[in-house]
Amino acid sequence: MNEKLWSRVVITYVEPQVNGGRWPIRRSVGQSVSVTVGAIVDGHDMLRAECHLVLMDENSGVFPLTLRYNDEYTGCFTPPSIGCYTYRACAWIDRFGTWQEEFARRVKGGAAEPEILVELRTGADLIAEVAELATGADRSALHKAAKALESGHTEPAFEEELLALYRRHDPKTGAAWSDDRLLVVDRKLATFAAWYEFFPRSSGAIGHGTLDDAAARLGGIRKMGFDVVYLPPVHPIGTTFRKGKDNSPAAEAGEPGSPWAIGSGEGGHKSVSSALGGLEAFNRFIKRANELGLAVALDIAFQCSPDHPYVTDHPEWFRKRADGSIRYAENPPKKYQDVYPFDFTCADFPALWEELKSIFEFWIERGVHIFRVDNPHTKPFAFWKWSLDALYKEHPHLIFLAEAFSRPKIMAHLATLGFNNSYTYFTWRNSKAELESYFEELTKSELAEYFRPNLWPNTPDILHDYLAHGGRAAHLVRFALAATLSSVYGVYGPPYEHVVHRQHPDREEYADNEKYEVRIWNWDDPTSLQPFFRRINRIRKENPALHGNRSLQFLPTTNPQIVAYIKAESENIIICVVNLDPRQIQECTVDLAATALPEGFQLHDLVGGERYFPAGTVHFVRLDPNIMPVRIYRVLSRTVTEADFDYYA
Amino acid sequence: MNEKLWSRVVITYVEPQVNGGRWPIRRSVGQSVSVTVGAIVDGHDMLRAECHLVLMDENSGVFPLTLRYNDEYTGCFTPPSIGCYTYRACAWIDRFGTWQEEFARRVKGGAAEPEILVELRTGADLIAEVAELATGADRSALHKAAKALESGHTEPAFEEELLALYRRHDPKTGAAWSDDRLLVVDRKLATFAAWYEFFPRSSGAIGHGTLDDAAARLGGIRKMGFDVVYLPPVHPIGTTFRKGKDNSPAAEAGEPGSPWAIGSGEGGHKSVSSALGGLEAFNRFIKRANELGLAVALDIAFQCSPDHPYVTDHPEWFRKRADGSIRYAENPPKKYQDVYPFDFTCADFPALWEELKSIFEFWIERGVHIFRVDNPHTKPFAFWKWSLDALYKEHPHLIFLAEAFSRPKIMAHLATLGFNNSYTYFTWRNSKAELESYFEELTKSELAEYFRPNLWPNTPDILHDYLAHGGRAAHLVRFALAATLSSVYGVYGPPYEHVVHRQHPDREEYADNEKYEVRIWNWDDPTSLQPFFRRINRIRKENPALHGNRSLQFLPTTNPQIVAYIKAESENIIICVVNLDPRQIQECTVDLAATALPEGFQLHDLVGGERYFPAGTVHFVRLDPNIMPVRIYRVLSRTVTEADFDYYA
Repeated sequence: MNEKLWSRVVITYVEPQVNGGRWPIRRSVGQSVSVTVGAIVDGHDMLRAECHLVLMDENSGVFPLTLRYNDEYTGCFTPPSIGCYTYRACAWIDRFGTWQEEFARRVKGGAAEPEILVELRTGADLIAEVAELATGADRSALHKAAKALESGHTEPAFEEELLALYRRHDPKTGAAWSDDRLLVVDRKLATFAAWYEFFPRSSGAIGHGTLDDAAARLGGIRKMGFDVVYLPPVHPIGTTFRKGKDNSPAAEAGEPGSPWAIGSGEGGHKSVSSALGGLEAFNRFIKRANELGLAVALDIAFQCSPDHPYVTDHPEWFRKRADGSIRYAENPPKKYQDVYPFDFTCADFPALWEELKSIFEFWIERGVHIFRVDNPHTKPFAFWKWSLDALYKEHPHLIFLAEAFSRPKIMAHLATLGFNNSYTYFTWRNSKAELESYFEELTKSELAEYFRPNLWPNTPDILHDYLAHGGRAAHLVRFALAATLSSVYGVYGPPYEHVVHRQHPDREEYADNEKYEVRIWNWDDPTSLQPFFRRINRIRKENPALHGNRSLQFLPTTNPQIVAYIKAESENIIICVVNLDPRQIQECTVDLAATALPEGFQLHDLVGGERYFPAGTVHFVRLDPNIMPVRIYRVLSRTVTEADFDYYA
Repeated sequence: MNEKLWSRVVITYVEPQVNGGRWPIRRSVGQSVSVTVGAIVDGHDMLRAECHLVLMDENSGVFPLTLRYNDEYTGCFTPPSIGCYTYRACAWIDRFGTWQEEFARRVKGGAAEPEILVELRTGADLIAEVAELATGADRSALHKAAKALESGHTEPAFEEELLALYRRHDPKTGAAWSDDRLLVVDRKLATFAAWYEFFPRSSGAIGHGTLDDAAARLGGIRKMGFDVVYLPPVHPIGTTFRKGKDNSPAAEAGEPGSPWAIGSGEGGHKSVSSALGGLEAFNRFIKRANELGLAVALDIAFQCSPDHPYVTDHPEWFRKRADGSIRYAENPPKKYQDVYPFDFTCADFPALWEELKSIFEFWIERGVHIFRVDNPHTKPFAFWKWSLDALYKEHPHLIFLAEAFSRPKIMAHLATLGFNNSYTYFTWRNSKAELESYFEELTKSELAEYFRPNLWPNTPDILHDYLAHGGRAAHLVRFALAATLSSVYGVYGPPYEHVVHRQHPDREEYADNEKYEVRIWNWDDPTSLQPFFRRINRIRKENPALHGNRSLQFLPTTNPQIVAYIKAESENIIICVVNLDPRQIQECTVDLAATALPEGFQLHDLVGGERYFPAGTVHFVRLDPNIMPVRIYRVLSRTVTEADFDYYA
């Protein structure tokens, strides 16, 4: 037994925590952390508590925690910058506070003078002790108070100023500390961003486009309000077992192949296809994006076409079949002969892992700081932990989007390893009940502490029946849901904005899929959804309520086809009401009773521009999918000025 | 990077766990642990999992876990004996199982012969590898199968027997292990016991009784079906500031004082009051209890009367006031001048702590293995951790009941430190809503893993208004609730069985409290509740459903004055229905729809003896508090024999 090894105070838990504190929570710059701590002590002493935030062994803040009830202490802090923090709670006995409180009870209970005098001396001793730790005016004031108490003056025993002075110099003897908890803070773009995906080769006006054609599209994309442009792989494409139109097993002459069949005699993961203009054109593309304030996300698919230089230079990095041939990707009976997966467990795995990590580093050097990682769930978790830890250490502003359309625990685990953006099941959650239960899980469970849903209504791999059969209204609905249910979302742009939704006959995929062919789009089509994209993205940018997901709360409606939800950030309150039926007019009342709306309010529809003045806490809505199935209300007080009415003119 | 340091498999969580695995879960002998494990792997491989139970570095069992759904594996084990265990989960890739499953898909998908032959060689290699690890017939069978596969025979590729053989010798290469989780297994009495508290000095027929008088009561107590007799402190009582009748500040001459004012010139915590017959009488008491199969629980109150030998021998163990006098117990403005608390943080605390621990050891040597610890929440948690760990190490069959009527987090924390029985808020939970919500918390939350509710309808300190004003019916109700809601309960017997319930005018306490005076009870009063106690305790013993709390489920009733609940253990099913209104007849229907009752059943009331044959899943009940407000049904199948009808004749 050693007195230094125990404290009368015990911290019983610290929240938030993920998996008992084993994994970090994540925030982005500007987002706060609400901490809840259980702290107890034997007997009747009062405690004080605080939270310490530490960045790289440097204390970067101490935040007070205050007693809520039942031995639970709460507080809030906002980490000052990007980085990997630890936070820990600390609690100690408030000796003078406890003394003052007990002394007041004694006096109130009619204690006799001898008892009062003895207790005043106890108080004096406490004050005299901290006086020794203080300097200047504080020291003098403490000594003076100690003397007053010592000589029988009761006034200081009730002074809040004296308590504050004591607390300022309290040595916090016997303080208890919690375990360290981990916190990673990302750049803001990790939690607030609108992504736009397109194929550079389909960005020309005629034939196979280049990255210069793609660069010419960036102005239009920026104008629509997007923050990130995401490109499928731009590397040379293999010819062996090249896939043809609509994933046919053999390409015809002149067919371009899938960009995910990476590598040819021209080069591999560190090369840019000459058909796209090569690395020079890529550099120009990055430069143009930078000028426009657009971030570029690159697709990282750790797999090779049979023609990839790795296959000949490093056959040891691939798994062999019993006959000695390299094992291509398959999920029996399906075969992907144009793709060789790496063998991450091969004998020489350290060299392979280093090489793969260097692919990220190669593109980081060329100005790419966002990566959409293809199928991370088919590579060892240990590889991601190792490589992402190393990459973040050098480049803490990176963003990694996990394309793991896998089972829930696998998706969650990838997020804990450092994928700070994740694809979700949103693409398949189309009914009101599905949306409500899924987003309750994403925003209210432990997942909300580390899993960042990046919502996509479509991808080159997925065209859901809802979009395929719901036409323009369905496209408006799903885009608005993605953009407002999560602060991060993305769209595979060209077919979506042109409301092209013909499905492949056998699969929930686009027909004439751009993965296998070059398409030409009319970027200036006046009937496209570009103005809608622009409107929605502007609403997002101008309303802080849509910059995070924690405040999300679904609102009861009287119609199962209409979903309604509210998000708030300080004074900014947004209510979205969406008719999920793309074919028929639906109407309902939305129950606003559970919300904390200001007394007397109006709803200003930022999509349609109309104003509504609900009577009471029930609001009637009628939504015609052929006109506009979506309303995004900003809640305004009734005393709003004329300028506010013109908010969205 | 070192291949031994990473596994493709990851265990994402193991449940049960308390506070992220920091604190142990508790069971008693015979109780099982249901384990749930999350385990994932990259790609499409199948996993197998198991749970290892380790007692003192010795493997004491390996239990299979089976996939439930969504990467969650479950299993159940029953630890073989008392002790401190760790348990940990392990998961690995089922290589041959995965191969068989993929091979079947290949064949079903119409794979060509060359592909089949290549894959058969892969399967043969797997089998040949484990054949090397097997011996005898298994080795031969494996080698034979490997050869068959090698030479192109597909039959073994579909054999479950071969898979079982492979799994038996699977080297489980690259298995992932979870952290260790802690499990403490107590003796059965820690989870199934009926306690009876009485004051030995009030057990005589005339004047101050002795432990020999108390020993003479033990037969009657055993006959009522109790398992544990709990005695308030039996030590010499101080005279300085001795309290008089009903806690009056000064005792009259001849008043006996409170047993909790421990210590006098006669001795302290290791002595027995001469008025009770001294240590010799105590030894005879223990001997008699042993003969009857009754366990004895002693009260341990770590505090001293001013006359305790410790006060003069070890003044350094007590806190001083500023005037140098020893600080008596107080909660301003209340003063307890007859009690000096120890200063657990004094400079010489190691000596104090050792001495206090030795008090437990002293009584353990004299045959006491159960301790009811007075106010543990006013002593440092670190002291309990240190002393209880040491005591359990030598005496793993001990039981410690924490008398901490404190705040929830403090009560919970004491349970995690080793108090394997705890007083609860049951005493104050009298309405149906209060009972339902409190017992949901106790039996369904994390608390159920370590906090053992020991329910007391009354104590010498507490006579709730419900009992004080509800008369005999209230006493029946609260006793039956305590005895059936929890497998461990206790009663402060004498006033309860005699339905003596006169309250102190100022407090929810008994008037003429036995804490301050000697009472004489008529142990043979034919109107006492002794037969009821006996009936209820017999029902408890004969029905395993009442030996645990995890199965507790409340049943909907149509009357807020009637509470109903079900408990089950294998075939044994018990349903309790209690009218909480001690004054008026109440009736209702009980909804049995949510229970899994056997098709066609009867309800046999083990209290009243009647049989009921509910039609459907709704059962009508009418309960007259003046007759019997409680029914405890055993669920019997309709095909029950005549002998079963006489179950409680």
